[in-house]
Amino acid sequence: MDTFQDRLSAAVRRTAAPVCVGLDPRLALLPAALRPDRSADPVACAAAYQTFCREVIDVVAPLAPVVKPQAAFFEQLGPPGMAALGQVMRYATSQGLLVLLDGKRNDIGSTATAYAEGWLGPLGESNWGADAMTVSPYLGDDSLAPFVEIARRRSAGVFVLVKTSNPGGAQFQDVAAPQAPLYRRVAEYVESLAKQTARAGQYGCVGAVVGATHPAQLAELRSAMPHAWFLVPGYGAQGGSAADVAAAFDSAGLGAVVSNSRGIIFAYRDKAYADSFGERRWQAAVEAATREMIDALRAKTPAAALVAE
Amino acid sequence: MDTFQDRLSAAVRRTAAPVCVGLDPRLALLPAALRPDRSADPVACAAAYQTFCREVIDVVAPLAPVVKPQAAFFEQLGPPGMAALGQVMRYATSQGLLVLLDGKRNDIGSTATAYAEGWLGPLGESNWGADAMTVSPYLGDDSLAPFVEIARRRSAGVFVLVKTSNPGGAQFQDVAAPQAPLYRRVAEYVESLAKQTARAGQYGCVGAVVGATHPAQLAELRSAMPHAWFLVPGYGAQGGSAADVAAAFDSAGLGAVVSNSRGIIFAYRDKAYADSFGERRWQAAVEAATREMIDALRAKTPAAALVAE
Repeated sequence: MDTFQDRLSAAVRRTAAPVCVGLDPRLALLPAALRPDRSADPVACAAAYQTFCREVIDVVAPLAPVVKPQAAFFEQLGPPGMAALGQVMRYATSQGLLVLLDGKRNDIGSTATAYAEGWLGPLGESNWGADAMTVSPYLGDDSLAPFVEIARRRSAGVFVLVKTSNPGGAQFQDVAAPQAPLYRRVAEYVESLAKQTARAGQYGCVGAVVGATHPAQLAELRSAMPHAWFLVPGYGAQGGSAADVAAAFDSAGLGAVVSNSRGIIFAYRDKAYADSFGERRWQAAVEAATREMIDALRAKTPAAALVAE
Repeated sequence: MDTFQDRLSAAVRRTAAPVCVGLDPRLALLPAALRPDRSADPVACAAAYQTFCREVIDVVAPLAPVVKPQAAFFEQLGPPGMAALGQVMRYATSQGLLVLLDGKRNDIGSTATAYAEGWLGPLGESNWGADAMTVSPYLGDDSLAPFVEIARRRSAGVFVLVKTSNPGGAQFQDVAAPQAPLYRRVAEYVESLAKQTARAGQYGCVGAVVGATHPAQLAELRSAMPHAWFLVPGYGAQGGSAADVAAAFDSAGLGAVVSNSRGIIFAYRDKAYADSFGERRWQAAVEAATREMIDALRAKTPAAALVAE
């Protein structure tokens, strides 16, 4: 199997769309037709989440290269939610999408190994079948090492939180250590891991999560991590625009995947789409929002180069 | 229902044992009689983990106040592992133990809410039924706020990673910001949350994870966080001794719960117990290791005061 970074590059080139669709199902936001009658029943909710995510996947699979299920929303439902998550991941893979599990996991070395072995790599090798996953850096190098090792071995990928998109992200990430803030220290370490796993002049299997809501830091971090793919959350609902994320890309339009969850999957609730589509045509709103985001990225970022190819 | 911190104090006083037994099942370490025939089958492995954990719980429930299932090992098995985790948590609760989910979760605010709502509080209010859970601080205050709010509302607790027990923990946690290392900044914030949730002169529902492997920092952090219960991992297998953790306690022997996973649940593999018990009497080894740890804490730490009560 090709490395994760090669599969990601190929998928971004094929779709000419550096877009990651976040699968963040929330009961209160589901289209009415999909909302379960017994909303207190986790089994009924999990079935609704599974249906909803399958129908989102049906729309976005021809348009976008990556989906990102958010573990929290499935986990919230208890074991039935986790079973639904497994089914959603399997279905996304069957539809040709790369699956990036957003779980922000980590622990000390031997326990980190269990997370990495469970999540990363094709079903059979792993029990979940994720192409990549997000991990937290707070526990340091020996907590990241098992993810990197298993990602390499199974042609999977890892995205390390570097600079998150939320306002509170600054509280510890921006603490000024001598010379540079903490997130720069994390970035330097992520770059060293990315470089170790990369062929010369290419990206590695270790990437970075860098929020769309800090454009200046995005440019700074792009220079600091030339071997790392960026996963860029915070587009749309959180305020980041296509122009804000332009600095995350390399000149060929690669190196960044911009993530959007609510802005796509719940587009039918957005005034801009509600008038044209209404709740019953919620899948048409998903398609329109995905296409609009792709058009914006092609217009305002180096992703323009992907179309010319 | 009493607050988490009051239930924890009462349970530590009742058992006179500030001990948290980590439930970290690992296939290769299970007693032979419990190892599944088809070790590649996650359903068979999950059933084995469930049996193993139940049998550990049967031994430790009369001795220790808290168990700490490690999410990673259950998650490693995919959805069947998560179903087993739910059953293990339910069984531990039914046996009178407090259940601390070790998942080191976190995400940006609205997603953190999903984790907190899913895990914290009794079954019915939550879908997992944890009394408390571990969370990562890297995403800052707005990521911690939902855990604190939901913990308060549901009489549950939260333990924030401050200073972890692994060697790599120093890489970012010890980065020297002006005045103090990063973990001190985290500690100061955790203390402010703990104080907000505490009655005057008591502990709050927000605690700190501080490793047993850094005795000097443990003392420093005890002074810095007078309102925070400490969860102290790193005892035993990772090298921390009873004397090393003494500084985590207050003078009444409260304020700290020392966690031990492999050293208790896989004690039958330890030379010290293997000779006396052998693999078939692995539960007797669990009991002996638990009692020995309790005796050491009563001898070498302020937990001595609990026995005098």
